[in-house]
Amino acid sequence: MKKANSGGALVVCSGGVDSVTALYWAKCRYKRVEAITFNYGANHNKRERAALRRVCADSATPLTVISLPLGRYFKSSLLSGADKIPEGHYAADNMKSTVVPFRNGIMLSFAAGFAESNGFGAVVLGNHGGDHTIYPDCRPDFIDSIATAIKCGTWNKVKVLSPFCNITKADIVRFGAQLGVPYKHTYSCYKGGRRHCGKCGTCVERKEAFALAKVKDPTEYEA
Amino acid sequence: MKKANSGGALVVCSGGVDSVTALYWAKCRYKRVEAITFNYGANHNKRERAALRRVCADSATPLTVISLPLGRYFKSSLLSGADKIPEGHYAADNMKSTVVPFRNGIMLSFAAGFAESNGFGAVVLGNHGGDHTIYPDCRPDFIDSIATAIKCGTWNKVKVLSPFCNITKADIVRFGAQLGVPYKHTYSCYKGGRRHCGKCGTCVERKEAFALAKVKDPTEYEA
Repeated sequence: MKKANSGGALVVCSGGVDSVTALYWAKCRYKRVEAITFNYGANHNKRERAALRRVCADSATPLTVISLPLGRYFKSSLLSGADKIPEGHYAADNMKSTVVPFRNGIMLSFAAGFAESNGFGAVVLGNHGGDHTIYPDCRPDFIDSIATAIKCGTWNKVKVLSPFCNITKADIVRFGAQLGVPYKHTYSCYKGGRRHCGKCGTCVERKEAFALAKVKDPTEYEA
Repeated sequence: MKKANSGGALVVCSGGVDSVTALYWAKCRYKRVEAITFNYGANHNKRERAALRRVCADSATPLTVISLPLGRYFKSSLLSGADKIPEGHYAADNMKSTVVPFRNGIMLSFAAGFAESNGFGAVVLGNHGGDHTIYPDCRPDFIDSIATAIKCGTWNKVKVLSPFCNITKADIVRFGAQLGVPYKHTYSCYKGGRRHCGKCGTCVERKEAFALAKVKDPTEYEA
């Protein structure tokens, strides 16, 4: 694929399966790709960030780390310590406690201003179809309207790209495996332990995605 | 006017003429009103904040101060020291250097998450018709689309209110004078000195607004 020359892409990354696949997706399409990550005070931010640093170092991707003071002002079990994280299926109703209100809006907005300041033409988010039940700021109507807001609200008409918005996490894993995404080095457990707990919503979803994609899961789980 | 009981309003405030008038506007309409302000590293943030603290103290309005690390990553003359601030008319082309990329998007997004976390039904922004030339994230199409994004992206469908979006700063001053807004205690000079410089874009605009509104300007200018 011929890579886009102009502008470049800034990928909002956590260090999990979806955003690291989005990073590899962008690297197939743009000559200039950088990652931006947000430390917003979640239990698992530190592990995610360590994973992301490794992925970025191995793929020669510049990474910017931004600290945002959400933890002090926002209400979410994700900001309240590992023992507050519910166990079970990712799409179940009790997972709503893990919503960090308008997190994707905040991250995309910051990334848009960063992109405008530093000459990127696009920001990329790895949200996917399975996020829609629990996270309102992962749904297509949110993505469409924030994309319009960012296009209207920047002089360079920065684009929002959401390549996985209408596919599943299993589809992402299937696609990423073909690109050689180093899933072994990604991290997504909401509990934030050294190994993935295997029981929280994201762990259950992660296992399920590899199983459905028929891709070998390289993750070491506690359970 | 009967005040809205449910939810309450969170007003994004700098401490200048427009946002303090928006605060008083909200206080006429909602029983519960709080202010949120952002220290994003601009030359004048400290003076603005001191002004806002006084206004909030005098009007018994709770105020939350959020620090955002824009100064290190964003490009704007507003983030580069007082001697980088252009002089002249606010709507002139050289004022484009004072744009802080997607600032309103970032502030509204943070405010939306804060509102959702703390039970506010609406966030209020004091942008106005005169901002449209220079600041893309003050225009009606931006406001409409970010309002949709915030409504779609929050469980409680947080509203964005932009009461001055289609009126001028002179209209704001005329309206605020009737409400008894303490303009003497507001601050907006981009140079960030003890007194308003009287020459930068915002000072020129401020003077002009009082003159056009035929309201006595209580501001002490250097020039």
